[in-house]
Amino acid sequence: MSPIKSLIKDVPNWPQPGVTFKDITPLLASPEGFRQAIDAIVSSVPERIDVVVGMEARGFIFAAPVALRLGAGFAPVRKAGKLPREVLSETFDLEYGSATLTMHADALVTGSRVLVVDDVLATGGTITATAALLNRLGAELVHVAVLLELTALGGRERLAAAGIDSCSAVISE
Amino acid sequence: MSPIKSLIKDVPNWPQPGVTFKDITPLLASPEGFRQAIDAIVSSVPERIDVVVGMEARGFIFAAPVALRLGAGFAPVRKAGKLPREVLSETFDLEYGSATLTMHADALVTGSRVLVVDDVLATGGTITATAALLNRLGAELVHVAVLLELTALGGRERLAAAGIDSCSAVISE
Repeated sequence: MSPIKSLIKDVPNWPQPGVTFKDITPLLASPEGFRQAIDAIVSSVPERIDVVVGMEARGFIFAAPVALRLGAGFAPVRKAGKLPREVLSETFDLEYGSATLTMHADALVTGSRVLVVDDVLATGGTITATAALLNRLGAELVHVAVLLELTALGGRERLAAAGIDSCSAVISE
Repeated sequence: MSPIKSLIKDVPNWPQPGVTFKDITPLLASPEGFRQAIDAIVSSVPERIDVVVGMEARGFIFAAPVALRLGAGFAPVRKAGKLPREVLSETFDLEYGSATLTMHADALVTGSRVLVVDDVLATGGTITATAALLNRLGAELVHVAVLLELTALGGRERLAAAGIDSCSAVISE
């Protein structure tokens, strides 16, 4: 098992019965593990990037350091009611429940080359909703990089159905 | 005006009338501005740190990169219902409303030297609640570093009243 994988812990039946939650806090607590995770995400990016987009809240922990490492800007995707100026919104289904994501209407210059970074690719709902926001903003989603892909949940297929074919995961299980 | 300060925008009457919100998204969108902000926070840390603690959600954007730069671990403070294992909780008043913050009960080794990083020091409610969690976990809060301090809101005095005297801000206004 990779050092990174051994630092991600299963929490059964959370947040609801039948769901196994992936707890990344032991990885974050390890200076070496956290650094290796960021290194691996940065290494997986195949093309030049203008802006890294990360999703509230755990996504920020990975997306912000990756933006700094790539010398790119960072644009946050936030839940409804959190961004102070004019926003675009997308509502979508989660693995459990639903959510609305927003970005500032002026968050991205038209034609910006965007990397989306998140901690976990599960069903792909968060990332496809983010891709829809990027499309409406006129930006180009060139790659999606995640720490952990849960292949049984079909997220990669859902991304492909939305036209997102460039996707890498540090760990797939 | 410093380059960093010019990238933080006032949004009047948000999230409620009479409050002026500090919008950091233009700073994050600037690769150079974001890098300078992280450099400045890292430079303000006076002592050796074991763990950087950051608060959901905007705090993660600054605290995670600072942890990586310092070679320290990262421990998230999250809102109620977000962490999957046993937690400690603190409820407190915000500038507008109230909130409950949580940390995993095993988030920190006793005696850990902790740096708290956040984007804005306003009334100090979030940071004093975090300090209470750190105290209950047996950790030592050695420094608080923020990007922006709003001096009129008395946050530094509230921190001092809670025994927190080591606090730096990249920008004070």
